[in-house]
Amino acid sequence: MDKVSLIHGAGGEMMQSLIGSVFANIKNNNAGGVGLEALDDGAAIPFGDKYIVLTTDSHVIKPIFFPGGDIGRLSISGTVNDLAMMGARPVALTNGVIIPEGFSMDDLKKIVESVDEALGEVGAALVTGDTKVLPKEALDSILINTAGIGIADTPIRDSGLNPGDVIIVTGTIGDHGISIISHREGFKFGTELRSDCAPIWNTVKAALDVGGVTAMKDPTRGGVANVLNEMASKSHVKIVIEEEALPIRQDVKAAADMLGIDPMEVANEGKAVIGVRADKADETLAAIKNTKYGKDAVIIGTVTEGKGVIMKTKIGGQRFIEPPLGDPVPRVC
Amino acid sequence: MDKVSLIHGAGGEMMQSLIGSVFANIKNNNAGGVGLEALDDGAAIPFGDKYIVLTTDSHVIKPIFFPGGDIGRLSISGTVNDLAMMGARPVALTNGVIIPEGFSMDDLKKIVESVDEALGEVGAALVTGDTKVLPKEALDSILINTAGIGIADTPIRDSGLNPGDVIIVTGTIGDHGISIISHREGFKFGTELRSDCAPIWNTVKAALDVGGVTAMKDPTRGGVANVLNEMASKSHVKIVIEEEALPIRQDVKAAADMLGIDPMEVANEGKAVIGVRADKADETLAAIKNTKYGKDAVIIGTVTEGKGVIMKTKIGGQRFIEPPLGDPVPRVC
Ligand SMILES: Nc1ncnc2c1ncn2[C@@H]1O[C@H](COP(=O)(O)OP(=O)(O)OP(=O)(O)O)[C@@H](O)[C@H]1O
Ligand SMILES: Nc1ncnc2c1ncn2[C@@H]1O[C@H](COP(=O)(O)OP(=O)(O)OP(=O)(O)O)[C@@H](O)[C@H]1O
Ligand SMILES: [Mg+2]
Ligand SMILES: [Mg+2]
Ligand SMILES: [Mg+2]
Ligand SMILES: [Mg+2]
Ligand SMILES: [Mg+2]
Ligand SMILES: [Mg+2]
Repeated sequence: MDKVSLIHGAGGEMMQSLIGSVFANIKNNNAGGVGLEALDDGAAIPFGDKYIVLTTDSHVIKPIFFPGGDIGRLSISGTVNDLAMMGARPVALTNGVIIPEGFSMDDLKKIVESVDEALGEVGAALVTGDTKVLPKEALDSILINTAGIGIADTPIRDSGLNPGDVIIVTGTIGDHGISIISHREGFKFGTELRSDCAPIWNTVKAALDVGGVTAMKDPTRGGVANVLNEMASKSHVKIVIEEEALPIRQDVKAAADMLGIDPMEVANEGKAVIGVRADKADETLAAIKNTKYGKDAVIIGTVTEGKGVIMKTKIGGQRFIEPPLGDPVPRVC
Repeated sequence: MDKVSLIHGAGGEMMQSLIGSVFANIKNNNAGGVGLEALDDGAAIPFGDKYIVLTTDSHVIKPIFFPGGDIGRLSISGTVNDLAMMGARPVALTNGVIIPEGFSMDDLKKIVESVDEALGEVGAALVTGDTKVLPKEALDSILINTAGIGIADTPIRDSGLNPGDVIIVTGTIGDHGISIISHREGFKFGTELRSDCAPIWNTVKAALDVGGVTAMKDPTRGGVANVLNEMASKSHVKIVIEEEALPIRQDVKAAADMLGIDPMEVANEGKAVIGVRADKADETLAAIKNTKYGKDAVIIGTVTEGKGVIMKTKIGGQRFIEPPLGDPVPRVC
């Protein structure tokens, strides 16, 4: 492994190994609280009696306008959602754009309008940014990095699951990845598939307010299969999922089958996987379902002692859900 | 202006006009305190009796290893210095890397070591990040976005100059930009020119501790000429500079002359332009000179009523220092 390859950026086991062997060597990795060593959705730094949560994501998606969103909406949603996964109300975001020479000014304005609209949905602000322009031979498409800070009373970790907890997913699985690849390949599947790209702080807040959330992670690159495995392994527990309960849209399933892609392994951009204490599960589910981006939420499984992620299949069998080596859809976010 | 061009990313008046006509339209632009509308080095959000300062920069420099530093050291220095310019102690940084497929793993490790070393100089931590890999046809060189948070008692603004203040520059002017272009063009000028790339929080802190600092800005893209104009215009004052006082290394001047580039218009990556109350000027200068990155600090001018930036030349004349349309060195940071 002497060169970086595409799969090192695809959100699965290969990326984790790159991060583990290169970036995790940084010694100045913690400012108090949850630092880089935790490899969680963000970091959480104690400040007074609260925590400042800090997170970042770069967005390299192609195409930049897609059914259900664009790179502007995506860049805000990605960062708002990582803050939310740490239990933090999103407060202030940054906007680092790198633009290829010759990029359309009108498209840039459209992207900035989407940014503003997504911010407005959750009451966050874009407070600072940076602009670079590269020669067109050097870069093929606009890139946006967004970092953000939020405030949490207590950070929620991806490692907080306990045996007995219940696993909720806040809506349908696979919509973003399957719609992007279908759109890119020019496939038509009757109804138009759409990305779920959305800033879901209000949905997450409804869950947090009930008081039983033990762990959260947003199933972005590598999908639900990846985050379930990460949550199980970091929490030292086993997760048992019911195949029958998995909310996958019929058209997503059909497209995924044709493409030979597992919807459990592709990125979602407006969903959370949430661990909840069993005694709070129904109340939490009801609270989530009552929000704009939580209508299709369901309980998909439970946590037990042990390790790994098991799926009880519809026909009564069991199989492991393995983490993907990498998300099967290139440039998905 | 229907397409983005290279000069829109070059840090001078053209970039300001792009930011003003596109990004400044964002309505959700303030989270309390100093927001996007201020177009300062970062934003400052009140929290308890302090301020959280947030800033970001993307780094697209070529070559990624250069005399005096590399893109890793640069990415930490850039963000630490923007935090420092707002009067904030750097606390926690993010690291968003976008890597072209085929990039050398050893080079990546070297960059990460430089990151760690620069963090160690100022006691900051890298707490979170993101990794994307693009096909080699899509991107020609590694890009690093860094965002960061710091804590300030009172934010220092770039608009805080008052008539009577004194202007200090913390060291020699033009080293970064002139050394990058010389190195890139393969020029030899006797002694090797080196970038000044450094995280200068300790130098800035020494100045702040004296208690007379009224305004600060780091002369990155567009150089000292650009920041003097921005500080004068935002503060509604005139700045008068003494040409004789300007600290420009002899080899930088020689190279700049040969290249036909004004060292006042190119990026510095380890310097600050600081406005100080006259009664504190000598003490502040002494405090700065006592630090590792402040040894060549000098007073270069004074602030008066009026507008614009005037230079008193060595031969007794006067001329305007205009802000550049854009930094003359492409991909300088
Ligand atoms: N270049 C990097 N430097 C430092 N830490 C990194 C870097 N890349 C990733 N990490 C860390 O590794 C962990 C996993 O990163 P990842 O980007 O997969 O998380 P995510 O943002 O939640 O997922 P996604 O990017 O798919 O939305 C995080 O804790 C992140 O901070
Ligand atoms: N894409 C953007 N979106 C929002 N604000 C931006 C964007 N680009 C720049 N800005 C804002 O414009 C102002 C000037 O940005 P600039 O990048 O020149 O500042 P800087 O980081 O101090 O300088 P440099 O990038 O040369 O180090 C800053 O307040 C910055 O927050
Ligand atoms: Mg996440
Ligand atoms: Mg993310
Ligand atoms: Mg900048
Ligand atoms: Mg600055
Ligand atoms: Mg900067
Ligand atoms: Mg990420």
